[in-house]
Amino acid sequence: MAFTFQINNDVVWDYDENLLERAEANIPELIETKVCPTGIVERISADQRTNEFTLAKSQKNILHLSDYALGRGESLILDLGDHYVGHFSIEINSVGSPMDAPLYLRLKFAEVPSELYAASEDYDGWLSRSWIQEEHVHLDVLPAKLQLPRRYSCRYVELSVIDTSPKWKASFSNPLFVAESSVSMNQLSDSTIEDAELKAIYNVSVKTLQDCMQTVFEDGPKRDRRLWLGDLRLQALANYYTFNDLFLVKRCLYLFGGMRTTEGKIPANVFTAPELTPDDTFLFDYSLFFITTLYDYVQHTSDYDALENLYPIAKKAIDLALEQVDSEGRLVLSEEWPVFVDWSNDFDKATAGQAIVIYTLKRFIKLAEMYNDQQHSNYHQMLEKLIDFSKQALFDNKRKQFVVEETNEVNLASQVWMVLAEVFDSNKNKKIMQETIKQHFPITGIATPYMYHHIVEALFMADCQEEAIRLMKDYWGKMIDLGADTFWEAFKPEDLDFSPYGSPILNSYCHAWSCTPAYLIGKYLLANE
Amino acid sequence: MAFTFQINNDVVWDYDENLLERAEANIPELIETKVCPTGIVERISADQRTNEFTLAKSQKNILHLSDYALGRGESLILDLGDHYVGHFSIEINSVGSPMDAPLYLRLKFAEVPSELYAASEDYDGWLSRSWIQEEHVHLDVLPAKLQLPRRYSCRYVELSVIDTSPKWKASFSNPLFVAESSVSMNQLSDSTIEDAELKAIYNVSVKTLQDCMQTVFEDGPKRDRRLWLGDLRLQALANYYTFNDLFLVKRCLYLFGGMRTTEGKIPANVFTAPELTPDDTFLFDYSLFFITTLYDYVQHTSDYDALENLYPIAKKAIDLALEQVDSEGRLVLSEEWPVFVDWSNDFDKATAGQAIVIYTLKRFIKLAEMYNDQQHSNYHQMLEKLIDFSKQALFDNKRKQFVVEETNEVNLASQVWMVLAEVFDSNKNKKIMQETIKQHFPITGIATPYMYHHIVEALFMADCQEEAIRLMKDYWGKMIDLGADTFWEAFKPEDLDFSPYGSPILNSYCHAWSCTPAYLIGKYLLANE
Repeated sequence: MAFTFQINNDVVWDYDENLLERAEANIPELIETKVCPTGIVERISADQRTNEFTLAKSQKNILHLSDYALGRGESLILDLGDHYVGHFSIEINSVGSPMDAPLYLRLKFAEVPSELYAASEDYDGWLSRSWIQEEHVHLDVLPAKLQLPRRYSCRYVELSVIDTSPKWKASFSNPLFVAESSVSMNQLSDSTIEDAELKAIYNVSVKTLQDCMQTVFEDGPKRDRRLWLGDLRLQALANYYTFNDLFLVKRCLYLFGGMRTTEGKIPANVFTAPELTPDDTFLFDYSLFFITTLYDYVQHTSDYDALENLYPIAKKAIDLALEQVDSEGRLVLSEEWPVFVDWSNDFDKATAGQAIVIYTLKRFIKLAEMYNDQQHSNYHQMLEKLIDFSKQALFDNKRKQFVVEETNEVNLASQVWMVLAEVFDSNKNKKIMQETIKQHFPITGIATPYMYHHIVEALFMADCQEEAIRLMKDYWGKMIDLGADTFWEAFKPEDLDFSPYGSPILNSYCHAWSCTPAYLIGKYLLANE
Repeated sequence: MAFTFQINNDVVWDYDENLLERAEANIPELIETKVCPTGIVERISADQRTNEFTLAKSQKNILHLSDYALGRGESLILDLGDHYVGHFSIEINSVGSPMDAPLYLRLKFAEVPSELYAASEDYDGWLSRSWIQEEHVHLDVLPAKLQLPRRYSCRYVELSVIDTSPKWKASFSNPLFVAESSVSMNQLSDSTIEDAELKAIYNVSVKTLQDCMQTVFEDGPKRDRRLWLGDLRLQALANYYTFNDLFLVKRCLYLFGGMRTTEGKIPANVFTAPELTPDDTFLFDYSLFFITTLYDYVQHTSDYDALENLYPIAKKAIDLALEQVDSEGRLVLSEEWPVFVDWSNDFDKATAGQAIVIYTLKRFIKLAEMYNDQQHSNYHQMLEKLIDFSKQALFDNKRKQFVVEETNEVNLASQVWMVLAEVFDSNKNKKIMQETIKQHFPITGIATPYMYHHIVEALFMADCQEEAIRLMKDYWGKMIDLGADTFWEAFKPEDLDFSPYGSPILNSYCHAWSCTPAYLIGKYLLANE
């Protein structure tokens, strides 16, 4: 998830200390891995570049790093060889006459080369420039070991000497990146994917997931570094098919369960430092995904203790959502509690929202059965009403597509979510998706791997496996073609320069909601073998 | 002292561990004083300003600091009420919605208001921009106490929030500056100066000296923060008339005594961190000032143990200097070992250099007598020869001024140093200085309080007390009129915008060689009362 902008000052929170204690009891010990840079790289001058934002291997040899002393205005770029999340240290000495002024050093941490081509001072967007991974450091005395206290998400580390003095230069040695994650690649069994493209997509998905798995499932370790419900749902699914770290999912479920508004509304995201704090941002679909995430978790783990503790939270969540459904079975969204579906606001989300309620309610009913809730017959009636309304009022038989009631708008998200919600049977779903391909492919106007994920899953569910694989390759595969070590927060194949923030320097290039091919491949391709 | 640019890679050093141990045994414990800001100030818009670089008292009350939360691009300036040297800390919290991005903060420490009007990024001079007292800090989690590890020299602390996020602002509280010096104002007895102008000059001199007295006598606590011999000589003199911290003088003498070239040359300055290191810069007059500083110290303290240990160093230093004197008694300077006298290179320094040798040799001879050195008769002969040559070849009886032999140039520095060296008797010296006033006053082209000090002392010695006091008031008094809390490294009354570095942001506004009015007033005015 990325940024959605709400300020709700008047929210009153209800902290459930019992649930939060369980969350805190499951904080993982992070696994540390020492990473030494594998090389030195450099920017390519504009006239040598075919692709605008690539880096070239430097003539300089990383084994002789300390020989390349840097004076005023000089810099070099260390390449870690892959994307990592963690802490950086390096030893610095002065070379020449005695050090007669402080060293003034800038360190820039970049996930992708384009960040190293962007000048931080040129950034002028609304998102906080505090996210730019750049530090300015004065060192009064050398030699020194510089151990930066903050965590970075990067593959490249640029060392730029802003100034020394005319009498000496700075020499660098023993750069070390200590990578951190709650999980290790050693926990994985070898994947049996034969298709090289899919294998690459799978591997990058897994790396993306690993780097987002910290003391919570983070959305992006560069930015926003926190737990969003919509991302958690997808990460948990990918996790079940890969690392299978069940404690971290449990922890995150308890975090959301323990911090709600007094009326029981679940926030879209929570913070864990300096203390557990819910954000004052509410998204209708994200609140519902607490239920589906709990369902997926219990389904996968049979952790009935968690079901026992968290079912009341889920029930309150579905009840609140169903208050938005009118007597005809129509979801009536309110401005204060918008549905997300995708970043784009160029399409109407009413029908997709309706589908998400159906999708969730089906899973809630299964949770209610597992919990043995005697009072759940209403939910069946409500589900029928929602489905009936969808079939009667929202499906255009001629066009073989779901529409938006008020405008008759036909959009991609409506079809996808209605298929995922299995409003019709698989036969009809296949026809809907075939029609969707005709009408909406090649896809344009969608910038989030989050929405692409749902499209691919809808294709798989509607028995359009070939098209699902094709889309995965065209979308996630294209990111790999462009050099991705981890999958990006935002990507528009039809507009490679797209950034939601006006500069690549603010983009997150390792983002939770982009890791789902590991789940899609695991569930729909490997499990069938 | 400020920067003089030499690189001498081929120097071989001789460390005397015995002397250096004595230096290290005299490291002072710094005295810490807690200073809370006295107010909040602000820049004045260009059209309201009469003087370009002043600050106005803000409407904001320092007692309500935490009420003035700052968002993107907002800043405020804390006023410590006086100049201090030390460490800064402040507590920071977020106000508003939960903190959903790091805080990116810039802190700028300024000795004088003009630094707060200069944009650091505009600085384009040759001196290292690493001296600019500015930090960029990211804080990932608030509340936090920000405790900056570096030492600053300042009166003002500007807090500029580069970015928060649209959802919250940063609030500041409990700013604290812990001032440090090897001496305390409590060590001083009340001065009995009645003249208000002189009293102010004396007080600012003492403050300047205090802030430069750290674990060595520093030249400037903002820049260059190290021990120069030429500054040490003057600081020691001012110290004898004020704080009288004898251990610190002893420590510094031993530092220079313990680090010489193998031929016995004393460097112009030394570093003390990370380890004791002599700089590869040599100035003819600064090397000689080891002798005069030792003489002043032994004279003041009767520390014959120091004399015993350091006399051989002084003897070697005078011997090396006298090698530059030819058979006629003429000092022949070499390019590798230039004489400093003053920053300006617009006048010929040969005659001033000759006078400095005489000045020093006289004091060395007294040291030799105290040491009971049997082999010092040569020095008397050499002194006579130097004086004879000066009188015969360098003094123009008609003009009543010393000249430069080769060019007949008459300059201020030649007269001043020949008077200080007492080449003629006091009667004739008075005539020379009266003529000097006629020819060279009002002074132009001199930017250093260092040179002004020697002019004033020459006036005192030549019985021109009134003119000496006038000049002190016109020069140091003018700095106070312009708002000085401590005296500046560089000041040209005839050119108020002068900076040797192209920007006030690099100037040192608390500089050792500017503290001498405390000595001049103490010796020539108070001692006579």
